[in-house]
Formats: sequence, structure tokens, C-alpha cells
Amino acid sequence: MFETVSENRCFGGVQGVYTHDSDACACDMTFGLFLPEEAEDGPVPVLWYLSGLTCTHENAMTKAGAQLWAAEHGIAVVFPDTSPRGEGVANDDAYDLGQGAGFYVNATQQPWAPHFQMWDYVADELPRLLLNNFAIDEERQAITGHSMGGHGALTLAMNLPGRFASVSAFSPIANPTKSDWGRKQLSAYLGDDEAAWQRHDASLLVKNVGFDGPMLIDQGSNDQFLDLLKPEALSAAIAEARQPAAFRMQKGYDHSYFFVASFMEEHIGFHAEALYR
Amino acid sequence: MFETVSENRCFGGVQGVYTHDSDACACDMTFGLFLPEEAEDGPVPVLWYLSGLTCTHENAMTKAGAQLWAAEHGIAVVFPDTSPRGEGVANDDAYDLGQGAGFYVNATQQPWAPHFQMWDYVADELPRLLLNNFAIDEERQAITGHSMGGHGALTLAMNLPGRFASVSAFSPIANPTKSDWGRKQLSAYLGDDEAAWQRHDASLLVKNVGFDGPMLIDQGSNDQFLDLLKPEALSAAIAEARQPAAFRMQKGYDHSYFFVASFMEEHIGFHAEALYR
Repeated sequence: MFETVSENRCFGGVQGVYTHDSDACACDMTFGLFLPEEAEDGPVPVLWYLSGLTCTHENAMTKAGAQLWAAEHGIAVVFPDTSPRGEGVANDDAYDLGQGAGFYVNATQQPWAPHFQMWDYVADELPRLLLNNFAIDEERQAITGHSMGGHGALTLAMNLPGRFASVSAFSPIANPTKSDWGRKQLSAYLGDDEAAWQRHDASLLVKNVGFDGPMLIDQGSNDQFLDLLKPEALSAAIAEARQPAAFRMQKGYDHSYFFVASFMEEHIGFHAEALYR
Repeated sequence: MFETVSENRCFGGVQGVYTHDSDACACDMTFGLFLPEEAEDGPVPVLWYLSGLTCTHENAMTKAGAQLWAAEHGIAVVFPDTSPRGEGVANDDAYDLGQGAGFYVNATQQPWAPHFQMWDYVADELPRLLLNNFAIDEERQAITGHSMGGHGALTLAMNLPGRFASVSAFSPIANPTKSDWGRKQLSAYLGDDEAAWQRHDASLLVKNVGFDGPMLIDQGSNDQFLDLLKPEALSAAIAEARQPAAFRMQKGYDHSYFFVASFMEEHIGFHAEALYR
């Protein structure tokens, strides 16, 4: 079913790394899972943390400082990988396409379609594995992410109404249908018919669908990728659609994990409030 | 004097990385420095964090979660590298000798002596650079470290009376003169006359010199390196010498940064109490 790669005691709970043979991605997939001490006594709420371009399951698990606050609130955190991987899996020399850059979509185009089914992996297969094997409460899930993972968090939350109690994002790719972080990948994975792209664009989704729950977005004002992230599209959509949300432009912060770590306390506190309502 | 490699806003302060041409080590040396927001208004106390085998300045800076608590207490944290580095610098194939394994001593033996002067680097050269260029208060310094860096923290603190207000360590190499993590390196760097090793062994120093200030040691009970760390020698020395100290065996924790991060709040709180007395 799955194999344990490592388990380390961490803030009174356990930070585990596990690997399994994924049906959706047709390859081995690795994920991190932090379980707080409370999971010894029964199912706990879970926060999904989706990572950005070039990341594996490991980056946020070691650098985002999430376990401290997850332990404080008795919440599990799952860190999925960002794409299928391996020798038999298609790839590209660019850092922003192929392995490490799954964009949380189901690819329909070659050579990507056989393995790049990250939407199904994160929306269906990995939740099922977690719920069947760990002390996680299906009825109390929330989702967050950084950059490409912020895009994933927002698009999953809005496309799966009722699944997540709350959604947040750190410097998300906010308007991929209008950005070089998006057009290139959506075209490669989904093809040139832009109709198929619409449900993978957070700014369009806020206007077309919305999210029935609290939403929190943090964006650094000194982010080196502002032109690609397009936060202004998302903040405008929030205002136009009257979407209940907090969009915060954080002075002086850039795109790094130092930014993510700096606001992790508030994001996990935000989700805890929704999860324990 | 020194060059800025990077600066990232972090918990309201700045996490910087700087490089300089070191006289002590006769090569370029890189260090990390977190300055809290308070440093904009004047000198702040500083905590030295010495890292373990194989680490650079970067590991603890990204994985130990120190900046959060340093920001909360208005304390700077400096993350020195663990050895000289570069093509012209001697090295060894083993992970525990040469580059990445300076052991915080001044080598007297070949081929190490020309560059491996980490004691002078951490005790003299780097403090001078910091005090001359950053808003750091010379009169309020404390020191901590992990594994080989815990050894460094304890031995520096006890050999430099009056320098550090407090000392702590995470799973330190506690009795290197009796361990394969120690005998090999002290012999290579300092030669076979064990008299020269004595001032680089925390357990011997507690008995022979002691520390005039608070001391805190955390050790994980599931540490995979207990046989090499020899915490029992240090805890016995503390008891025999009546050294004021807290030695804590932490149930279930191993040697990883997940352990370090789990207790960082308490270590920085411990140092803050001494620094603001």
C-alpha cells in the first residue's frame, strides 16, 4: 500500500515521509505527513500544503515552519510532491515544465498524459490513501500552498465545493491563463483550447464560481516574480465578485520560504479557526 | 570588507547571507545573519548558532526555525560555516574530516593548519567583523549549537569566560576525547599529544573550568548517534562538578533538525532571559 521512508519525532508528533505506487500518476510518489500528538487518540483535522515549481514533498516540510503551529492546533499537514517523477516519466529541460512542475492538472496531451495526472492525485488518490491509513478526519480538511501550490490550493478549493473548510495561499500564481507561468504549461498539458484552462485559473474561478468559506492570500511586495504571479488580477476579482477574503500585500517580503515561514502562524491559525468551528 | 550574497525579509527583520575574505582561514568564508527589526534602531543582543558535521551556514538558517523566536525576543542570530572551503583547501573523503568538519579548533598539523583555524575564526575574526558592520551589542552575546556545533558552543563558552551570558546545545558531541567523533579529528588537527585536546572536550571542561552562567543541554533519547555523542559523560560531569545546568533527555527525538526545531523556542527563550537580565 505504502512504505515508510522516514519518521522523525517533531513538536511532540511525528513527521513522516512515505512512498507509494500511484495509480493516477503511474509511478512511485512520495509525500510528507506531519501528525500531531493528538492523532494517537483519534482522527485530527488536516491541512493540505501544495508546493511550488521545482519543489518536492521535502522543501516546505523542512523550511516552512508549519509543524510548530500544526502541533499547537492539533492539525495534520500533508506535503504532496509537485509532479510525477522517475526515469520513465516525461520531462523538459526548463525548470517550469515537466517534473517538479505538474501545475495540479490532469494532462490530456502527449508526452505528459500518461503520468501527469496531479489533479486526480491530489484530489482523489492521496486523500483516499491518507483517510484509509492515518488518523485523519475526512470532514475537516483545509488547503494552502505557495506559488504554483497556491494556484493549486485555490483551484482545488473552488472546484471541489464542500471539500475544504478554508483556503489560503502564499504568493499564488493567480492568473495563469494570462501569464507565462500558466500559458506555457496549460498549453503543454491541456492543449491549445483555452476553454479547458478556465477551471485552472484562480482569478477566473473567483469570478465564475467563488469559494464558500474563508480565504486568505498573502503576497510579498518585493516578490521577484510579481509580473508572473499577477496578484492584481486576483485582488480585483475578489473585489468585483464580493468574494469574502483577505488579500494582504506584505511590505518588503519576497518569494522565498523566509516569507512563507514568516506568515505560517497566521495561516495555520486562520485554518484552525475554520476547522474547529 | 564583506559582500552581500542575499538578503530576505523574514519575521519583520532581515535574513542575510554574506561572504568575506577570511584572514584566519585564508579563504572566502560565508555566514548567515538574522537581524530582527529592532536592529534598525540600535545594537541588539546576538546568539551564535554553530552547526554540525556536513553543514554549511545554510542548514540551520533554513531548517531550525530560529528566526521566529529571535524576532520575538529582538535577538540577532549568526550562522557561521563549519569549516574553511574551496579548491585550495585540504579535504578528506570522509564526511567527518576536513571541509564541513572543522570541529572549532585551530589546526596545528599538516595538511590542515594553513586553513583550518575555526577557533580563531569564530572566537575572534567573525565577531570583529559583525561588531564593526552590524547593529550588534558586544556586551550581550550567547551561544548554542547542534552536534559538532554543540561541542563548539560549549567549548567556546567555557574557554572564553565573560564572553557569553549563556550557553546551550542540542545533542552536542559531549566527550570527543573518548569518542570516534573526536579522537580522529583532534588527532588529525591537533596531533597525538592529548594534552592539547583537553580544552576541546565539554565534559572535561565542565569538571576543570565550568561555566559562570546558565547552561541548557537537550538530547533526544532516540538519537541514532548516542554512542558517538556520549551525553552520559557530560551529564555526569555536570553532576560531579555541581555545574548549574539543565540536562534534558527528550523522549523519542532523534538527531535531526526536526528535533532542533522542536526545542528552539525554549532555547532562544532561555538565552533571552540571560541576555536581557
